[in-house]
Amino acid sequence: MELKDLYSNSTSTMKSSLIRELVSSTKGIPNLISFAGGFPSPKTFPVDDLANLFKEVIIENGLDILQYGASEGDIQLKKALKHWEDNSELSDNEMLIVTGSTNGIYYFVKTFINPGDVIICEGPSFLGSLVAFEACGAEVVPVNMDEDGLIIEELENTIIRLKNEKKNIKFIYTIPDFQNPTGVTLSYSRRKKLIEVCISHNILILEDDPYGLLRYKGETIASLFDISRNEYQNKYIVTCVKSFSKILGPGLRIAYMMAHEEIINKMSSWLQKVIVSPDCVAERAVAYYINEGKLENHVKDIQEFYKPYLESMLIALEKYMPKEIRWTKPEGGIFLWLDCPEHINTDDLFEVSKNEKVTFIPGSKFYPSNYEKFNSLRLNFSFPSHEQIDEGIKRLGLLLSKQL
Amino acid sequence: MELKDLYSNSTSTMKSSLIRELVSSTKGIPNLISFAGGFPSPKTFPVDDLANLFKEVIIENGLDILQYGASEGDIQLKKALKHWEDNSELSDNEMLIVTGSTNGIYYFVKTFINPGDVIICEGPSFLGSLVAFEACGAEVVPVNMDEDGLIIEELENTIIRLKNEKKNIKFIYTIPDFQNPTGVTLSYSRRKKLIEVCISHNILILEDDPYGLLRYKGETIASLFDISRNEYQNKYIVTCVKSFSKILGPGLRIAYMMAHEEIINKMSSWLQKVIVSPDCVAERAVAYYINEGKLENHVKDIQEFYKPYLESMLIALEKYMPKEIRWTKPEGGIFLWLDCPEHINTDDLFEVSKNEKVTFIPGSKFYPSNYEKFNSLRLNFSFPSHEQIDEGIKRLGLLLSKQL
Repeated sequence: MELKDLYSNSTSTMKSSLIRELVSSTKGIPNLISFAGGFPSPKTFPVDDLANLFKEVIIENGLDILQYGASEGDIQLKKALKHWEDNSELSDNEMLIVTGSTNGIYYFVKTFINPGDVIICEGPSFLGSLVAFEACGAEVVPVNMDEDGLIIEELENTIIRLKNEKKNIKFIYTIPDFQNPTGVTLSYSRRKKLIEVCISHNILILEDDPYGLLRYKGETIASLFDISRNEYQNKYIVTCVKSFSKILGPGLRIAYMMAHEEIINKMSSWLQKVIVSPDCVAERAVAYYINEGKLENHVKDIQEFYKPYLESMLIALEKYMPKEIRWTKPEGGIFLWLDCPEHINTDDLFEVSKNEKVTFIPGSKFYPSNYEKFNSLRLNFSFPSHEQIDEGIKRLGLLLSKQL
Repeated sequence: MELKDLYSNSTSTMKSSLIRELVSSTKGIPNLISFAGGFPSPKTFPVDDLANLFKEVIIENGLDILQYGASEGDIQLKKALKHWEDNSELSDNEMLIVTGSTNGIYYFVKTFINPGDVIICEGPSFLGSLVAFEACGAEVVPVNMDEDGLIIEELENTIIRLKNEKKNIKFIYTIPDFQNPTGVTLSYSRRKKLIEVCISHNILILEDDPYGLLRYKGETIASLFDISRNEYQNKYIVTCVKSFSKILGPGLRIAYMMAHEEIINKMSSWLQKVIVSPDCVAERAVAYYINEGKLENHVKDIQEFYKPYLESMLIALEKYMPKEIRWTKPEGGIFLWLDCPEHINTDDLFEVSKNEKVTFIPGSKFYPSNYEKFNSLRLNFSFPSHEQIDEGIKRLGLLLSKQL
């Protein structure tokens, strides 16, 4: 017998993370400067605070939090989060604690997607979500962005075209703040238009917000979740997922969702079958961290920490990039996006750049199947040092110059 | 718009955990004696050790374990587990760390099950797995057990019948040690026969082993995983999942799988899409717990702790049960199973028993859809006190006497 004859269809056709393979192809290159990562800087992790908190939390609550926990999530963490969100109208039934954003997104997909249903996303978008969507049988259709995010006219045209094709569009997946991979933020006026379009077409919105707190300049824009509730009195159209991965450390696997209570209820039923409950010790530790008032200051510290790296990156790009190259100017997050002339293929550039000891993620990896574009790339600025940013962008600028 | 019009088919037809609903229907009853739980006793959680370990682990490894971890699981935990399993032949690629057994079982299902495929299970079996199987579109077919576990002749007849019906049987789900809900252990000779039947029919085995370490008397029987490798030189037929939920505490959400490396690889691809990685802090804490040599003694302590509760339960049953009632005599685990004459309906008995302030889980909850039986019930002995066991079984015995 061959095992492959036994695999489910979705397993046989499943894509693995191309990014992981790319990154591992550069492992072992000495002195490599990497802009490929998507990791927060470990220097931002509140190690000592968490070490003490975990001990405190287990001593004080061990008999409770080492036991099976509620599938809907720790009630104490929900209480702390409502306070943190400054949203007294949010009920416990409108929140779900999940083991990382990707986990929450998975339950949303399982709640709504039948094989063949359509999910519309930004083009480009976060690869991790795209492969999960496709693994669940969704057809994923991208809509172009500009410097203000998703282009609403293109979205409307896409919706109409898909509806004419009798496609079943279930939801729009968007990362409105400092988007992965572009760093672009959806403007306030587009947020409103997006909500209006979705209400009129009966299409849900999944708002993925892992970077919202990482704003280094400019004004915070209200979330789609808040706008839909406060300005449209609509409680079902937007489901929002927020994460502590970029704030306290992804190793903790704690994120939370806010949604209509019916949606929370269905996602919670899936959660029960997939993980039973989130890690109760980590949940309570995060609750303590918030309750002890540490989160607000820590977020400010992280913003101060990352801001100079974004500035270094923007300065280096200005200094070293040929004039034909354009890039986004994010006000936060950990990524920005480089657009090259059409004839440049960044999949090829990736191979060449390894020899020059600099690396990035080719833009093609951030599109759904059959929609790949090849003349752009993603740069991460949260992991390399200032010196590495300067030297790495210099190398990349030289490489690009040669190809123009 | 109504949300329910948007739900996926699997969400619309999904069953929630009937046990949770049953248990919550008894909440608030004062002085209720509950044999309904499936929870380990919090008295067995090594609270102080874990509190100190979590602090130590975060101080020493914070920068590493607060970061994104490997989807395949922490390499240090795998090393510790290989030592604990005393299996030097096991490679890292044959292990996967998961966030609880249910999580691992989910990946196994996603790896192999197309909607309509058949999973054979013990009848009765663990409800949490059954509802997850059905949510993934599997047809779940039970095979009867006796005091030695799954009846192999009935299994063979079921396989032949299903094959004649052109059904696609993918795997057999079994809990061979101190099964939930019956407490029954599959005998050594049946383990061998089960493996032989599965090899000859090309049907995989998923061995769920959450209770194997909780043996209070008798001799340990080799796992299906070990027997298949050592006695049949077969590396693909058995996938095994073991958990720390009943040993260190379910709140930690740490379990591990052992399987053919191709299967591990596919399950790991699903894990990446569903949770990205397990909780890295909890993973490393468990690794330290094992490496510091604490696990072996702790397991002995737990065995000593639970043993008298099983004995109390068996004594109370002997003392108070009418002669028409039969029950299993487990050598470990946390459950046993009561069989009543055919005319007794334990769903009804559950309602009556609430008034007498004693509760249990009716047997019907442990069967796949359309296979329910109604004349048995599950008793848990890991949670109530000795006094509660005596008094609770007395009440139950009286109730049953009235119905005979």
